[in-house]
Amino acid sequence: MTAMEALSRLLQPRSVAVIGASGDPAKTAGRPVSYLQKHGFAGTIYPVNPKLDRIGELPCYRDVASLPAVPDVGIVLLGAERAHIAVKELAQRGAAAAIVLASGYTETGEEGARRQQQLLEAAGSMRILGPNTIGLVNLTDHIVLSASGALEMDHFHAGAIGVVSQSGGILGALLSRAAARGIGLSKLVSTSNEADLELADFVDALVDDPATRVIALYIEAIRQPEKFRAAALKAARAGKPIVAFKIGRSEAGAKAAVSHTGALAGADRMYDALFQQTGVIRAQTFGDLLDIPAALATGRVLRGKRVAILTSTGGAGTLVSDSLGVSGFETPAPDEPTAAALRALQTGDHAALDRNPIDVTLAGLQPDLLRGAIKALLASPSYDALAVIIGSSGVGRPELMAGAIEDCLPLSDKPVLAYVSPHAPEAAALLTQRGVPAFVAAESCTAALAGMLQASRWRAPAGAPEGAARVQLHDLPAGSLDEAQAKRLFARFGVPCAREAIVRSGEEAERAARELGGRVVLKILSSEITHKSDVGGVAVNVSPEEIAARLVAMAAGVERATGLRPERFLVQEMVDGGCELILGMHRDALGTAILLGMGGVTAELFKDTTIRLLPAQGGLGRDEALAMARDLKTWPLLDGFRGRPKADVDALADAIVAFSRMAAQLGDRLVEAEINPLFVLPRGAGVRAADGVVVLRE
Amino acid sequence: MTAMEALSRLLQPRSVAVIGASGDPAKTAGRPVSYLQKHGFAGTIYPVNPKLDRIGELPCYRDVASLPAVPDVGIVLLGAERAHIAVKELAQRGAAAAIVLASGYTETGEEGARRQQQLLEAAGSMRILGPNTIGLVNLTDHIVLSASGALEMDHFHAGAIGVVSQSGGILGALLSRAAARGIGLSKLVSTSNEADLELADFVDALVDDPATRVIALYIEAIRQPEKFRAAALKAARAGKPIVAFKIGRSEAGAKAAVSHTGALAGADRMYDALFQQTGVIRAQTFGDLLDIPAALATGRVLRGKRVAILTSTGGAGTLVSDSLGVSGFETPAPDEPTAAALRALQTGDHAALDRNPIDVTLAGLQPDLLRGAIKALLASPSYDALAVIIGSSGVGRPELMAGAIEDCLPLSDKPVLAYVSPHAPEAAALLTQRGVPAFVAAESCTAALAGMLQASRWRAPAGAPEGAARVQLHDLPAGSLDEAQAKRLFARFGVPCAREAIVRSGEEAERAARELGGRVVLKILSSEITHKSDVGGVAVNVSPEEIAARLVAMAAGVERATGLRPERFLVQEMVDGGCELILGMHRDALGTAILLGMGGVTAELFKDTTIRLLPAQGGLGRDEALAMARDLKTWPLLDGFRGRPKADVDALADAIVAFSRMAAQLGDRLVEAEINPLFVLPRGAGVRAADGVVVLRE
Repeated sequence: MTAMEALSRLLQPRSVAVIGASGDPAKTAGRPVSYLQKHGFAGTIYPVNPKLDRIGELPCYRDVASLPAVPDVGIVLLGAERAHIAVKELAQRGAAAAIVLASGYTETGEEGARRQQQLLEAAGSMRILGPNTIGLVNLTDHIVLSASGALEMDHFHAGAIGVVSQSGGILGALLSRAAARGIGLSKLVSTSNEADLELADFVDALVDDPATRVIALYIEAIRQPEKFRAAALKAARAGKPIVAFKIGRSEAGAKAAVSHTGALAGADRMYDALFQQTGVIRAQTFGDLLDIPAALATGRVLRGKRVAILTSTGGAGTLVSDSLGVSGFETPAPDEPTAAALRALQTGDHAALDRNPIDVTLAGLQPDLLRGAIKALLASPSYDALAVIIGSSGVGRPELMAGAIEDCLPLSDKPVLAYVSPHAPEAAALLTQRGVPAFVAAESCTAALAGMLQASRWRAPAGAPEGAARVQLHDLPAGSLDEAQAKRLFARFGVPCAREAIVRSGEEAERAARELGGRVVLKILSSEITHKSDVGGVAVNVSPEEIAARLVAMAAGVERATGLRPERFLVQEMVDGGCELILGMHRDALGTAILLGMGGVTAELFKDTTIRLLPAQGGLGRDEALAMARDLKTWPLLDGFRGRPKADVDALADAIVAFSRMAAQLGDRLVEAEINPLFVLPRGAGVRAADGVVVLRE
Repeated sequence: MTAMEALSRLLQPRSVAVIGASGDPAKTAGRPVSYLQKHGFAGTIYPVNPKLDRIGELPCYRDVASLPAVPDVGIVLLGAERAHIAVKELAQRGAAAAIVLASGYTETGEEGARRQQQLLEAAGSMRILGPNTIGLVNLTDHIVLSASGALEMDHFHAGAIGVVSQSGGILGALLSRAAARGIGLSKLVSTSNEADLELADFVDALVDDPATRVIALYIEAIRQPEKFRAAALKAARAGKPIVAFKIGRSEAGAKAAVSHTGALAGADRMYDALFQQTGVIRAQTFGDLLDIPAALATGRVLRGKRVAILTSTGGAGTLVSDSLGVSGFETPAPDEPTAAALRALQTGDHAALDRNPIDVTLAGLQPDLLRGAIKALLASPSYDALAVIIGSSGVGRPELMAGAIEDCLPLSDKPVLAYVSPHAPEAAALLTQRGVPAFVAAESCTAALAGMLQASRWRAPAGAPEGAARVQLHDLPAGSLDEAQAKRLFARFGVPCAREAIVRSGEEAERAARELGGRVVLKILSSEITHKSDVGGVAVNVSPEEIAARLVAMAAGVERATGLRPERFLVQEMVDGGCELILGMHRDALGTAILLGMGGVTAELFKDTTIRLLPAQGGLGRDEALAMARDLKTWPLLDGFRGRPKADVDALADAIVAFSRMAAQLGDRLVEAEINPLFVLPRGAGVRAADGVVVLRE
């Protein structure tokens, strides 16, 4: 049985054993059998309970060994003390997967972690969902594998959104909220402790699930980033967008999430980078986690930023227009042919048809007029999407509104969504079910459209350039490198460094300065003293005539400050007239990232940096490196802002690629690496690493 | 009849004339009488319609003149062509106010504006609400003065929030949304075209209304900023917080709002300044416009940022904690006595009582345990507020949850709010009605608490220092001042300027440079050439020896570049070692503002500026000036960041106050004024205006 087969049997079982089933459907342990029966599970149910002969019509078995056939899935209702026994029995019978609901594992501390290990060992090659999970629901096939009241459903509103959540409670909230809004789901999975099966496994399975068109994820921590990356890229290739809400944007939230799951998360911005690089749309609010998928599930495509707003009431149209504008969408007035088509509809006296929001007044609520207006706007080359405002007059006859809009949907694949102004949940749900996702906040309309745009525009970043030979590094020292060693390492990978010489005396320094052609920088060279400037170990703009004396004075000063007498010095060419940047590496639980930042104290105050995670193999691609530079808020400083010379951005991109190759090749051996400053000179003049730090594992 | 009496008669009429009433309650013109009767209006209703004898039981009058008594209010249902006639008749009879529902006035263009003027003239001293309004609802006394379906109500959930909206449709949306959520309102007013009565009039009236504790405003444009400021400050003094949602955060929204109202709004950040300076809490989203007032209406007080989160389900608590953290709230773990009190409650095995969110597990949902936990957390000195998470188990028995929480409310005046995780609108409404405002988004909890904190912390800014004598300005030139004149003007108000001399020749320049003590700045002096640097009209760090030659060369260069031969030059002391700031003035429809910004190209990229509106009288107070400096994101550059010397912030504040006094005294005569750069030197060394622009009205 392949891993994929096991997962498919878990999501679509033909037989389910319920270990520890109770005959009382009011009890938690009575729910799984009751849920399966209630929704007409077409497969076989095997209740297991040594104390009972039957549960309703079903024969009840004393143990797993006594089952007449191998179940696809076992739901284990036993507590943490005994769950592993049932798991072992299920594994021995050859079940595909066990769902372990009990809590009391890693989330409770060391003793729990030990129990979780025991569970894993008991499972052998059988897959486990959980423990501490509330289970899963296959809405497509009407199968509820859960004992939780939160996953109780009266009616299946099946649809195209597959949901995976690391929190069970959140899964229940998403289920009930989606149902109330007419948003259809395909599969719902709570992975919780992820002793075995985890987020990425289900993303992978949902990409293969024909019923799933969009995947929504509630994430506390990604435990296996490489697996996640592979699954996300697979989803992107399949054209199934992933929308993820990740907890831990604040320290408080991160702490709460960690203590909730027991898993260590990476820094939040590392997640941003991971999501961006794998085409995952990040939901900024929990609400977005339903709003964006609801829009994407329509399968319609947003190709640009121009939105027509059709309204019969002024205020609400303005709300939507304002929110769209804040996020960079445009709401241009209708082009003349479109305005003429609207005028031909003969809407009310005070209709405003030559601006946007396009106000057809109450008269425009007549289905024929509405259809005409929608057709005109969908056909207009001036718009990429249409937002229809439903006012208090519209919600009174939601069928008419929904019907009129629905009729027009086949005419175009542009997104059409609705904003419902008064409280009218039934009208909103009806619209959503009819293919017009309806929202009650202007910000939701904007988030949905922004998500759609991201989905249609994202392209997988190209990997590192092919054929870059590995650099020979057999002679690499270990530990903290000194500045000269660090720069030699950067240079080996192709990062241009400032010319320099190592000297030990005033005479050597003077000779070096003359060879470098004039005024120079003089620095102490030491792997022990890292903050050279703070101890008077740096002098800039030094002439060859004065350098010998300066060296002597510097040596004395540094010794006074640190107690260490510097033996060696660097004489370095002066680099002038460029922008100072910082190029570094950062590593945490999520992976290794390359960081680019603008130098200077003001940029530092604004934390103007950007990061990219290294892919599984090799360094960053050149386009990605260029994109990093453009990400900086201070990008204009490199791009000729206010008459400055344009900087050599091509050379900067090459340096980023080279630095990332170094980080990729050295892998875990590289503990720390930073070029600071990296001078980016005017176009054609290249870049120069002027100082740097490297720490290698001992 | 004073203005206040007229308004009070409008909001609480004892008799209402309905001009143009129809006998058919299904028709729009039939609604006002029907609404008044349906809710048991205790006063007298006078339908006016020459074609009818009776409407139901009520006698119908042929015109206003025939009414047996003077009505407090007349609702005018006639179209824009005839409304002014009814208004005139009402005014002649001595009615307090007319509500004019018709559209077709300023919002439709010039012809409409003429009609609106006609309406105003017809009213004389009688007040008008509208035109183009949907009317008003007094929920406290069950009086609906409207013909709009959007204001139709079945049941009055009266409460403490008074709402004024410049959009009628929005008012309807707020009404239905509030009702569905159990949020009680006191008065609802749609001001729309504001031919006469406007936003500020109703703010003023609601401050005096005993039933109103919080005021919520939907604003498209404030037409009379000074009146608004006065009303807002009156509300602040009365301890009645105002929450305002202002449309027009984006250009698209601003355009839509302008075309909707026909009123010109000021720039959005000017509104930010106005709100901040008058204690108005700005709702960032339309949703906040109900969420924040719902929290404030409880009358409870938030004194700090520490929030306890009590939950029975892990995920949702984390959501709230994360959102609070993003906005700077803290969620500390319980102090030891509180943790002990929680442990003593004997909640479930896996309860997490020593962290926050405090997870009492499902066992903690028993009312006694819940009460105990809430009491312990409200009594704890570690917390300023309590957020209770309602999970799927809790919503099943909302009465129990709400009752348990409600029981504890009298023990403390700390805010208590609820986050409802699954879809459960009835449970949420019940909680809100019982005094525990309930929210369905974590961001709403955060916005509500942030609003409460702002309300409790806001203090009216002190005005300009007393006793500052007016500066004599009878000799002031007009038009565009040259640099030297501009700085002399700044200096007269007390802004220290760089020392300088006006010269006409190389010899004069050399003498001036020697008097200034060494190296200087040489600039052309011209009121015609404003961008001196761009035409080679500035040289820095010039020695007395070279200045004569530099002057000749500069004159020639500028003449080549501009065709104008500079006759006069400025020789100015070099100012070194400070921070460069920009201090300027900005004026739009909302008033005159003082702007402070960090200089330098990087700060410019980040648009690091802050503004304050001048008060009605005089300049800014010194505290306000200091607060401006601290508002800058680059404030650390002035405050000793990274070992820099601390800047002379006291002198900077004095300069801001002085500059603002200048702007206040000159009023509209001042068209433009800016000091750029203003050098702020290290502490004790003061500030120096080094260049500036002033344009005075001709």
